[in-house]
Amino acid sequence: MTSIATFTSVIETLGIIAFAMSGVFAALAKKLDMFGVLVIAFVTSVGGGTVRDMLIGATPVAWLKDTHTLSIILITVVITLLLRKRIGNFQRTLMVFDALGLGLFTVIGIQKGIAYGLSPGVCVALGTITGCFGGVVRDILLNHIPALFHVKELYATTCIAGGTVYFLTTGALGPEAAQVIAASV
Amino acid sequence: MTSIATFTSVIETLGIIAFAMSGVFAALAKKLDMFGVLVIAFVTSVGGGTVRDMLIGATPVAWLKDTHTLSIILITVVITLLLRKRIGNFQRTLMVFDALGLGLFTVIGIQKGIAYGLSPGVCVALGTITGCFGGVVRDILLNHIPALFHVKELYATTCIAGGTVYFLTTGALGPEAAQVIAASV
Amino acid sequence: MTSIATFTSVIETLGIIAFAMSGVFAALAKKLDMFGVLVIAFVTSVGGGTVRDMLIGATPVAWLKDTHTLSIILITVVITLLLRKRIGNFQRTLMVFDALGLGLFTVIGIQKGIAYGLSPGVCVALGTITGCFGGVVRDILLNHIPALFHVKELYATTCIAGGTVYFLTTGALGPEAAQVIAASV
Repeated sequence: MTSIATFTSVIETLGIIAFAMSGVFAALAKKLDMFGVLVIAFVTSVGGGTVRDMLIGATPVAWLKDTHTLSIILITVVITLLLRKRIGNFQRTLMVFDALGLGLFTVIGIQKGIAYGLSPGVCVALGTITGCFGGVVRDILLNHIPALFHVKELYATTCIAGGTVYFLTTGALGPEAAQVIAASV
Repeated sequence: MTSIATFTSVIETLGIIAFAMSGVFAALAKKLDMFGVLVIAFVTSVGGGTVRDMLIGATPVAWLKDTHTLSIILITVVITLLLRKRIGNFQRTLMVFDALGLGLFTVIGIQKGIAYGLSPGVCVALGTITGCFGGVVRDILLNHIPALFHVKELYATTCIAGGTVYFLTTGALGPEAAQVIAASV
Repeated sequence: MTSIATFTSVIETLGIIAFAMSGVFAALAKKLDMFGVLVIAFVTSVGGGTVRDMLIGATPVAWLKDTHTLSIILITVVITLLLRKRIGNFQRTLMVFDALGLGLFTVIGIQKGIAYGLSPGVCVALGTITGCFGGVVRDILLNHIPALFHVKELYATTCIAGGTVYFLTTGALGPEAAQVIAASV
């Protein structure tokens, strides 16, 4: 159980970083000031988990209870801003992190749903919200129709598929294997 | 009390269906993909009740605790998409359901407020949020100024009026009669 | 402690009034109807505190538990609408109230965070949310990119600076002095 917890926490951190970076780029594209960039990065990173925790009543929500989430986002924003000219080359790496983060945030959402005794369909919905909502709030704040709803990225479909795979594989292989598989879908 | 509970649950289901249908039509008008249509339908249906439950701390929020809400929305979306060409004729029927759902969602919100011991003015505000918020979130996601605020539908005014009527009539006639009257305002 | 409580409650009321007035003017600029104006004023006033309370799980949220917040907003909206032609002259006064309200809402948010045992960085974030979020939701509803993110008002920066000052001065001077200083930053 320790190895899966460590694995989860490493990938979750990578997910937070990747989402924060995607927030920085989206905010820069709209020419926001430094504070705007910081808020958008923050919201993209923690939005999904925050809505999930408010829906199930797990308050204070996760990022209020530790300090390292806030620090990770701050450091990510500063580094991304400093390196923004070079970072174009990392675009592909970013997409990999983003997909990993999305997959894992979905799985974390599902696990929290299970821990609260919710039914499987509801857990998949909750996982999808955890994975996707940060990006939705980012797009609302930047006055877009959420990319999620019309971009041909199979973004959300991935969440739902991953979540379903998670349920199907957990029974057969145990949670650790399921997590690896689901996150890689 | 059983007859009022059944009555409430039947009209609530009709309200969920009507709101989901209105979400589907709004999403199709913006040419969203299937996932976008599903999310908009979902948000329009459960948005008001979700915000109400988060405000009063009744968590996990209602739709997390049962599975049939999610199923009803899914089935409604599929059927609405299949029948979307024919359904233009049902526009008037839809408006009736929508008004009924709105009225009853408002009453349900007020009843929940009373159950939490909130004062009458606050209960009317809570009922109005329950009735109207789903449509507001739908319009935010679709990047409109919420129709609620500038369309001459007397939509929200109806909520507030219905809620006030509910309070005035409950004293005189008992909750069942009040519910019928308020929902029909 | 009584004097600080009274001071807080007086300035908080002024803050609610100032935010409600700013909501009315923003809504009128978009030609919303009376209901829209009322909702925008309401959201601008209570939005920040509501999100703060939902994040930390202090539910039912503050404005549900008393009636005077709702009454204050209603009266403010009516008076602002009646006097709207004359009120242009009060613009400077309004900005002072707005800044005061913002500063104090931030301090109140921080105090609530401390009462919940959260760490300093998180408390500053929570205070900033309390001070700024009402305006952000107002701008989302009115379909703007939140002014907060791109207007050169040093609005949010003020919150964060004020919050940090609050922490630095509390140790040296006690909470009352710190509150005065932070609110005036």
